[in-house]
Amino acid sequence: MVKANENFSKLKESYLFIEISGRINEFIKNNPDKPLIKMGIGDVTLPLAPAVTEAMKKASDEMGKAETFRGYEDSGRGYLFLRESVSGYYADIGVDLDPDEILISDGAKSDCGNLSDIFSSDNTVLVTDPVYPVYYDSNLMGGRNIVLMDSNEQNGFAAMPDYGVKSDIIYLCSPNNPTGSVYTKEQLQAWVDYANKTEAIIIFDAAYEAFIQDPELPRSIYQIEGARSCAIEISSLSKTAGFTGTRCGYTVVPKDIELSLNDGGKTSAYKLWCRRQSTKFNGVSYPVQRAAEAVFTKEGQAQVKKTIGYYQNNAKIITECFDKLRINYTGGKNSPYIWFKCPKNMSSWDFFDYMLKTIQVVGTPGQGFGKNGEGWFRLTSFNTSENTAEAMNRFEKMFYEMFQSS
Amino acid sequence: MVKANENFSKLKESYLFIEISGRINEFIKNNPDKPLIKMGIGDVTLPLAPAVTEAMKKASDEMGKAETFRGYEDSGRGYLFLRESVSGYYADIGVDLDPDEILISDGAKSDCGNLSDIFSSDNTVLVTDPVYPVYYDSNLMGGRNIVLMDSNEQNGFAAMPDYGVKSDIIYLCSPNNPTGSVYTKEQLQAWVDYANKTEAIIIFDAAYEAFIQDPELPRSIYQIEGARSCAIEISSLSKTAGFTGTRCGYTVVPKDIELSLNDGGKTSAYKLWCRRQSTKFNGVSYPVQRAAEAVFTKEGQAQVKKTIGYYQNNAKIITECFDKLRINYTGGKNSPYIWFKCPKNMSSWDFFDYMLKTIQVVGTPGQGFGKNGEGWFRLTSFNTSENTAEAMNRFEKMFYEMFQSS
Repeated sequence: MVKANENFSKLKESYLFIEISGRINEFIKNNPDKPLIKMGIGDVTLPLAPAVTEAMKKASDEMGKAETFRGYEDSGRGYLFLRESVSGYYADIGVDLDPDEILISDGAKSDCGNLSDIFSSDNTVLVTDPVYPVYYDSNLMGGRNIVLMDSNEQNGFAAMPDYGVKSDIIYLCSPNNPTGSVYTKEQLQAWVDYANKTEAIIIFDAAYEAFIQDPELPRSIYQIEGARSCAIEISSLSKTAGFTGTRCGYTVVPKDIELSLNDGGKTSAYKLWCRRQSTKFNGVSYPVQRAAEAVFTKEGQAQVKKTIGYYQNNAKIITECFDKLRINYTGGKNSPYIWFKCPKNMSSWDFFDYMLKTIQVVGTPGQGFGKNGEGWFRLTSFNTSENTAEAMNRFEKMFYEMFQSS
Repeated sequence: MVKANENFSKLKESYLFIEISGRINEFIKNNPDKPLIKMGIGDVTLPLAPAVTEAMKKASDEMGKAETFRGYEDSGRGYLFLRESVSGYYADIGVDLDPDEILISDGAKSDCGNLSDIFSSDNTVLVTDPVYPVYYDSNLMGGRNIVLMDSNEQNGFAAMPDYGVKSDIIYLCSPNNPTGSVYTKEQLQAWVDYANKTEAIIIFDAAYEAFIQDPELPRSIYQIEGARSCAIEISSLSKTAGFTGTRCGYTVVPKDIELSLNDGGKTSAYKLWCRRQSTKFNGVSYPVQRAAEAVFTKEGQAQVKKTIGYYQNNAKIITECFDKLRINYTGGKNSPYIWFKCPKNMSSWDFFDYMLKTIQVVGTPGQGFGKNGEGWFRLTSFNTSENTAEAMNRFEKMFYEMFQSS
């Protein structure tokens, strides 16, 4: 009989969102007259920008005419028009990239998972706890040893390098999912220095970079000196331009990054990634690539920034409430996520149930992202402004009542 | 230093199409006045059907409005509307599939490559020679032992099972790329019986099924008794509906297929593939899924069948010429590919150069697909009818002159 990839047995079932739906459905059944405000979801809600849908429709028309039809994209790495647009987007923050080093894909999640193909299973992987589960699970599938580093209240949910811990591949996410924390330039410099000194590689997930408002905070790891020799950056248009259902992302693999071979030789991570993609991938839909290109035009940027501004304002409604109530939180200012400590030292799931029952607001229990998430909770800014304001009004009232009753 | 996936070192550089372009460019430089007719390319050339582009544009508009916007697709396995359409398409040829068993992806190449994630590296893989390189390369990357079976003139380029050869995972492609040969029901039954008896799994690539005209030939492996317990089928809209640049495919994983675990237990291939996809994939672009759905409507089917008819007619122009010249070939009747023996026992590359120099027709040297391809050559039916007819006129003239001069 065909042997299974045994590593799949090590994966835990992902119960978090199933458990959340289960508890919600149970509540709705018993309380059909109490409408919920959902602030747990990590998905965008506003429509694509007009420039984006126009570009997609124009490209669809091109595909319908013999003169402008496009078949296979030669390289499968993305059309040059889009790679140049992304490279121009990086140039705006002072990062100089060869469009060749930017590879277009159907999204950050695919690249996150597939990148591990180019690494030996005999590498140690370092991820934070709490963590976006894809980093963990895709390396577990690949049979790699995984070491957890603590992101917690003490370090502001921004884990820093520990020279005592040996690792080869390090996953960093900033602005962070789920905690909303953002590394400063100094913190990221410490990580880049650590990676260069220990010959490790950082896989930097910049999916939420467009939410950074503070010009002092790095939006790309390539704003940090030395990153070109040790960092691969993954980003996407999912949060930048609402592409969660449209699917387009990009990964930067600098040509400088080297990997070791058993015979003592070296090979290039760039070369291996191109080979992986040309063997197991055939490029992104042409109309989607044109839609993505439109995001980076002047018109597109103005439109998507307006949408991000809307979510940022929602985040502000939440953080202003938390500031007023002196609740301990990270995120919100440069991130669509607000990660806060449950009142009265409640557990994440107890607080989930309490909010649901008391004010019908749904969030995500931090415990679902790792042991350090226990006692913490995530709200997102992707609902409407009206619902966000209403939810925070209810939250404030609930909060006062919690402490009055004690 | 981070260790590379050592298996990448075993991959041969894919020189075939690079070498072809090189020779073409050299010829053009020296003969700028002699226009080429390209019949080597395995890509479609006719535009998307009107029903398809209309559906894509309508879905783009939906994405631009708050009421109809779609973010992440919950499962990432494809919307039910599309899985039901595919299931209906199978029902038309008498195959009954649960839409749950049909998983939508961005193309057959991705699924072909990514499927190997669910299998242990400790499985032996059986592929034909000549072969579509993705089967070979993706398993080489995964560190699996690969056994070649001969497809050659003696067996009509349709390799049959050999009970003396031990294998776990078998890749079959019918209609075949590159040889155009098609398995009969009896031949495919022999493979299914072999797989069930030896507890192997067949990965059946049906990407060219829409080109089958003979109602006696199987278009799906599930038309064969016993296939549900041993066969995974990969297909796509690339050749069915010109989606090579639009990107949408589907893979059928019956829930009956079991894999073995080290502890003597069993697990389900379906379960593992769903887990693989939910971890490393986030679904296909919504407008692309709507475009794909349109392919399976009555209107869409009428339109795409017209396009396929055009290519089939081109194939007929080629095979009629070969029949007249008594050239030994496979394919063409139920496949867009025509695979033929080079005249005068020329090598594939010598014949490539000879055609280029003499009649400026470009094809693909069979040797590029494996050792059994040496002395054989592939032409495709994806050029225009005018060019195809002109190419075959030139071919006929060239052929007579070759034999007159000897």
